[in-house]
Amino acid sequence: MSEAMDRGFSEAELRGRVRLAQARMALAGIDALLLTTEPEIRYFTGFLSDFWLSPTRPWYVVLPGSGEPVAIIPDIGKAAFACTWLSDVRTWPSPDPDAEGVPFVCDAIREVVGEAGVIGIPMGQESHLRMPIEKFLWLRETLSGFAFRDCTEIVKSLRMVKSGAEVAKIESAARAAGAAFGALTRTTTENDSERDLFRRFKIACLEAGADDVPYLVGGTGTGGYDDIISPPSGHRLRRGEVLLLDVGARFDGYFCDFDRNFSVGPPSREVADAYTRLREAVEAGFVAARPGATARDVFLAIHTAIDRGGGSPLPTGRYGHGLGMQLTEWPSLSATDATMLEDGMVLTLEPCLSLAPGRYLVHEEIILVSETRNRYLTKPAPDDIPEIRLVRN
Amino acid sequence: MSEAMDRGFSEAELRGRVRLAQARMALAGIDALLLTTEPEIRYFTGFLSDFWLSPTRPWYVVLPGSGEPVAIIPDIGKAAFACTWLSDVRTWPSPDPDAEGVPFVCDAIREVVGEAGVIGIPMGQESHLRMPIEKFLWLRETLSGFAFRDCTEIVKSLRMVKSGAEVAKIESAARAAGAAFGALTRTTTENDSERDLFRRFKIACLEAGADDVPYLVGGTGTGGYDDIISPPSGHRLRRGEVLLLDVGARFDGYFCDFDRNFSVGPPSREVADAYTRLREAVEAGFVAARPGATARDVFLAIHTAIDRGGGSPLPTGRYGHGLGMQLTEWPSLSATDATMLEDGMVLTLEPCLSLAPGRYLVHEEIILVSETRNRYLTKPAPDDIPEIRLVRN
Repeated sequence: MSEAMDRGFSEAELRGRVRLAQARMALAGIDALLLTTEPEIRYFTGFLSDFWLSPTRPWYVVLPGSGEPVAIIPDIGKAAFACTWLSDVRTWPSPDPDAEGVPFVCDAIREVVGEAGVIGIPMGQESHLRMPIEKFLWLRETLSGFAFRDCTEIVKSLRMVKSGAEVAKIESAARAAGAAFGALTRTTTENDSERDLFRRFKIACLEAGADDVPYLVGGTGTGGYDDIISPPSGHRLRRGEVLLLDVGARFDGYFCDFDRNFSVGPPSREVADAYTRLREAVEAGFVAARPGATARDVFLAIHTAIDRGGGSPLPTGRYGHGLGMQLTEWPSLSATDATMLEDGMVLTLEPCLSLAPGRYLVHEEIILVSETRNRYLTKPAPDDIPEIRLVRN
Repeated sequence: MSEAMDRGFSEAELRGRVRLAQARMALAGIDALLLTTEPEIRYFTGFLSDFWLSPTRPWYVVLPGSGEPVAIIPDIGKAAFACTWLSDVRTWPSPDPDAEGVPFVCDAIREVVGEAGVIGIPMGQESHLRMPIEKFLWLRETLSGFAFRDCTEIVKSLRMVKSGAEVAKIESAARAAGAAFGALTRTTTENDSERDLFRRFKIACLEAGADDVPYLVGGTGTGGYDDIISPPSGHRLRRGEVLLLDVGARFDGYFCDFDRNFSVGPPSREVADAYTRLREAVEAGFVAARPGATARDVFLAIHTAIDRGGGSPLPTGRYGHGLGMQLTEWPSLSATDATMLEDGMVLTLEPCLSLAPGRYLVHEEIILVSETRNRYLTKPAPDDIPEIRLVRN
C-alpha cells in the first residue's frame, strides 16, 4: 500500500459516519449535534492538526439531522480545513474573547433546526466540552428555545466500532512501538537512566514509522512497581528490578497503547510466575472478548485468571479499554461496564497483579474483536519476561 | 547544574504560588478554587504526567482561601501523586461513571469553606473544564448554597509571570529545537518528503535533549504558504519553495514555540525582502514589549513594522502570545488585549506578512520580558533566510 493510502479517510467513509450519526439522532429525537472536541470533530470531518494543543480558540461543528455538517472555526484554520470534505465552513477572526464564534454557532443551529429543537452535546462519561463554560452558558441562554441533551451514547456507539482503515492505523502505530521494544534489550547499558532509555525508545518509535509518541510512562521497581503513570526519572537500572514501559505511539492520528515488562538481570521466581499469569490472563480476555459479550464479561474472565492466588486491590480500576483517536476510549473492561462488544471494536487487555502492597505488575496487549476471529494488533509479548543484560559502556 | 536540579520545582516555589493565589482570592471574595485541568493542577501541585491524555478519569484540586490544597484523584494516580508536596490527597476507585469523585469534591469544599461560600472556577478566555458537563451540573446542584464565579483572572495573572525555574525549562526546550533547526539545512535531500523531514526533525529535537515534540506543523509553498497548522504531507521539496516548521518541543513539561523559514534553493527577491521585514518586525516587538506596556502596544509596534507595504489580512489574529506549560497561553498580542506586561512574562513574537491572497510568511521568536533588559530565549534566526541546498542521495 502506498503511504498516501495510509493517510486520512475516504470521503465515503466520513459521509457514512455522518449518516449513521443522523440515523441514531432520529431515534433519539435529537435535531442537531454540537461538537467542540478534537476527536469528535476529526471523526466526522477528517480534520487532523496538532493545533488543538493551543487552548486559545474554540472550534465547532454543527451536525444537523439531515444534510451536511457546518464547521464554524477560527480564521487561522481556514486553509487547513479547506482540505476536508465539508463544503460549509464558516470562520471568524480569532482570538475574539468577547464572542469566539458563539453567535455564528447560534446562527448555524437556527438555520439547520429552526427556532426550537433538541441539541445533542456530549455531556456524559469520558466527555469534555472544549470551550469556556461562560461561553457555553451564554450559548445556552441565547438558544433559549432549545433543549440541550446528552448525546454521549451516539458518539460512543459510533466511535467504538472501528473501520478497517482505522484498525490499520492503530496497527501501524503498534508495529512501530513493537519494533522499538524489540531494540530495547539490545541497547541498554548499565549507565542508562530511565530518561536515557525513554528518550532512545521514542527515537526508535519514530525511526520505525510512528508520527509521534505522545504517551510514554512507566518506571522501575524491585520485584514490581507502584507507579505506572509517571514520566521517567534519573534513576539508573539495577539488577533485580522490573522495568515497565507503557507506550502510546501515534500513526496518522491513531494511538496504540500497550506495555512491556523487562527484568534487569534474571527475574526472581515470583516475578517470572506473575508475568506468566498476566500473559495467561490476557489470553483469557482474548477468548472472552467475543461479539455479544459485555465489557464486564471480559473483566470477569481476566479477573478469574488473575485471581487464582487470592484477592488483590485493583489500582487501575479496570483490565483494559477501547482506544483509537484517543489513548483510551470507551468501553472500560470493568466490573460495572455493560457495553456489548461488537465486531470491529479495538480493545486493550490489561491485567494487573498485586505482588505486595505497593508492588504490582501490569501487562497490556491490543486486540481487534472480530465476528470471524479475534486478532492481536500487537505482536504479543514473549512467553517469558525478557531480560535486560546491562551492557558496560 | 545537575539534571536533577533541572527537573520539577522546589516545594517553596509551589507553596508560594498557592499563597499568591490565596491573596488574590481574598481580594476577589473567593473562598476556594476548584481546578480540573492539567496545567492548573500542575501549577499548584507540581504533578506532571502524560496520563492526562486518557480522558476517562477526572482529577480535582480544591484550593482553599487558607491552608493547603486538597487533591481528589483517581486511585491509579495515588503512587505518582504521593511524590508531590501535598499532604491531603484523597482517592476513589475509578472508572466510576456514576460519581467519578464528585461526592468527595463536595465534601472537601464543605470542609474547607463551610455550608455556603463562593467557589472560583476558570470559566473565561482560554479556559476549559475537564470533567463531563453533566457531572459539573450535578456538583453545582449539590452545592446549592454556593455561588460559582469565574476565577480565570487569578489563574491567568499568576501563570503569565514565570519564575526563573520556569524560564529555564522553556529555554531548555527552545535550545533543543534550535539545535534541530541547525541540523536541518545539512541533512535535507532532494528525495525528502515533508514527512521525512518532520520525522528527522523530531528525532533531532529528542537527541538534543527535548523530552518530546508534541507540536510540529508547517509546510511548503512556492513563494509563501497558506496553511500553517497542518501535519506534514508526502510532498517532496522543490526549488523555489519556502519551507516552514513551527515547533513546540517540551522539556520537563514546558513548551517552546517558535518557527523557522527555509528557502529551497535561492530565495526570490520578494521572499528575501519579506523575511527581512518579518525579522525587523520581531525586533520592533522586542523593543516594545517592556514591563508596563500592554499586549496591544506590542501588537501595534509589530503591525507598524510589518505594514509598511500596505494593509494585509491577519489570519492568525495576533502577533504572538504567552507560553509555558501550554503551547499558547495568555496574553494575546492582539489589537484588543489590554493585558499589562510584567517582568518575568515569556512571549512569542510572531509577525505575519501576506504576500498575495493565500500566500504568506510568518516568523516567530520567544522572548523574556524583563525589568532590567528583555532577552531572547531562542537563538534568533539568521538575518537572511537560510537556504536548503537539496543534496542528491
